[in-house]
Amino acid sequence: MNGALGILGGMGPLATADFFQKVIKATPAARDQEHIPIFIYSVPQVPDRTESILSGKDEPLTWMRKGIETLCRSGAECIAIPCNTAHYWYEKLVDGLDIPVLHIVDATAASLASKDINEGPIGLLATTGTITAEVYQKRFSVLGYECITPNPDTQINGVTAGIEAVKAGDLDNARRRLEAAANTLVEQNCHAIVLGCTEIPIVLNSETNHSPRIQYLDATQSLAEASVRWHLDLPGKKQRII
Amino acid sequence: MNGALGILGGMGPLATADFFQKVIKATPAARDQEHIPIFIYSVPQVPDRTESILSGKDEPLTWMRKGIETLCRSGAECIAIPCNTAHYWYEKLVDGLDIPVLHIVDATAASLASKDINEGPIGLLATTGTITAEVYQKRFSVLGYECITPNPDTQINGVTAGIEAVKAGDLDNARRRLEAAANTLVEQNCHAIVLGCTEIPIVLNSETNHSPRIQYLDATQSLAEASVRWHLDLPGKKQRII
Repeated sequence: MNGALGILGGMGPLATADFFQKVIKATPAARDQEHIPIFIYSVPQVPDRTESILSGKDEPLTWMRKGIETLCRSGAECIAIPCNTAHYWYEKLVDGLDIPVLHIVDATAASLASKDINEGPIGLLATTGTITAEVYQKRFSVLGYECITPNPDTQINGVTAGIEAVKAGDLDNARRRLEAAANTLVEQNCHAIVLGCTEIPIVLNSETNHSPRIQYLDATQSLAEASVRWHLDLPGKKQRII
Repeated sequence: MNGALGILGGMGPLATADFFQKVIKATPAARDQEHIPIFIYSVPQVPDRTESILSGKDEPLTWMRKGIETLCRSGAECIAIPCNTAHYWYEKLVDGLDIPVLHIVDATAASLASKDINEGPIGLLATTGTITAEVYQKRFSVLGYECITPNPDTQINGVTAGIEAVKAGDLDNARRRLEAAANTLVEQNCHAIVLGCTEIPIVLNSETNHSPRIQYLDATQSLAEASVRWHLDLPGKKQRII
């Protein structure tokens, strides 16, 4: 299957659906046949990523490897993983793999650059797993961005509780908690805030943002755009027959 | 993979994403791990279904068979096809298959019954392929429903043009055309209108419906609910390990 994108999803499922929709909307296509062939593996039974990181376990890696294997067997030629925390295992996942896996932090950095945001501080709303594992901090520091994260109390009651509310479908409650967390980052002089957990943009986005002081950077949207760029950049794409 | 649902999608891709989201939202789950494992095959290069039906060609069948084969190999135990027109080939598709394929018209009929709508006339907004192939009319007439379809001019300029506008992402234009088509069915005494093309509920739904005279029945939603029922009805589901 030429030019097919594989989505390793299920972490969580609603975030996978959001990412899928963002890829479709970011694709320049006027009819069905011009859209990207996509395979999705959405198996939400993969153990909680944050819990695994905090307890030093690599269990999710086995699940993710099985998912990528299934996607490759179906014909995927590139993998996107719409889960920030899962990127903790990125290096181990790509080891030995002969197709590219897009990195969500690189995709987000590309969005920052395209918006002419070239220096920090950048606020980060993400799971405790993503923050503890320094998924963003490490890659961002190389690029010269300072990464500001919420204080422990806000992280627990604003971010973690907000993400859990999204997963449970309690969206109004989720939005209230996450907006409060974002405001604490603005108070620390962050005007660009990375929504670094795929559940967050479901409730915080340009439609819900009424503050001229905050610019949200949706990592899911960035990964979707990077996926479309990968597809459009394939040599001879238009001539290839699926 | 026990209890996994396979989605044969891509017809079109946005409708597939809409269906995926509806399945997730219809699932009683408070955390990721309680959601249904799902595989999606979204290959939008399958030839246009309506054109194929009108010109007497079976080309889409080959594509769809390949999709179901891929989904089964990934571990799917049941197939849902979020494309009404594709159900023209339903009997040929299920022939020889050893896992169930949910039928979108049966799912819609179940929704009508659950809303205590037990007699016609029922309006139908669908592609010209679905209407010409009598996908709904045949199964509905057995159940005692009369099916009313738009006149030829409304079908072309309201329904077909509206569906094409959804596929091209021109949603406001799509909504205007499809609402006008729905109104011609209300004038023919239809108060329940089946949205029998997966692109239509993207722009016509309970949020956009301000008329107390119209009740929209979203076939995509009905199929999503039937998919969740299939999963929850599996024997010993909770005990099964993926």
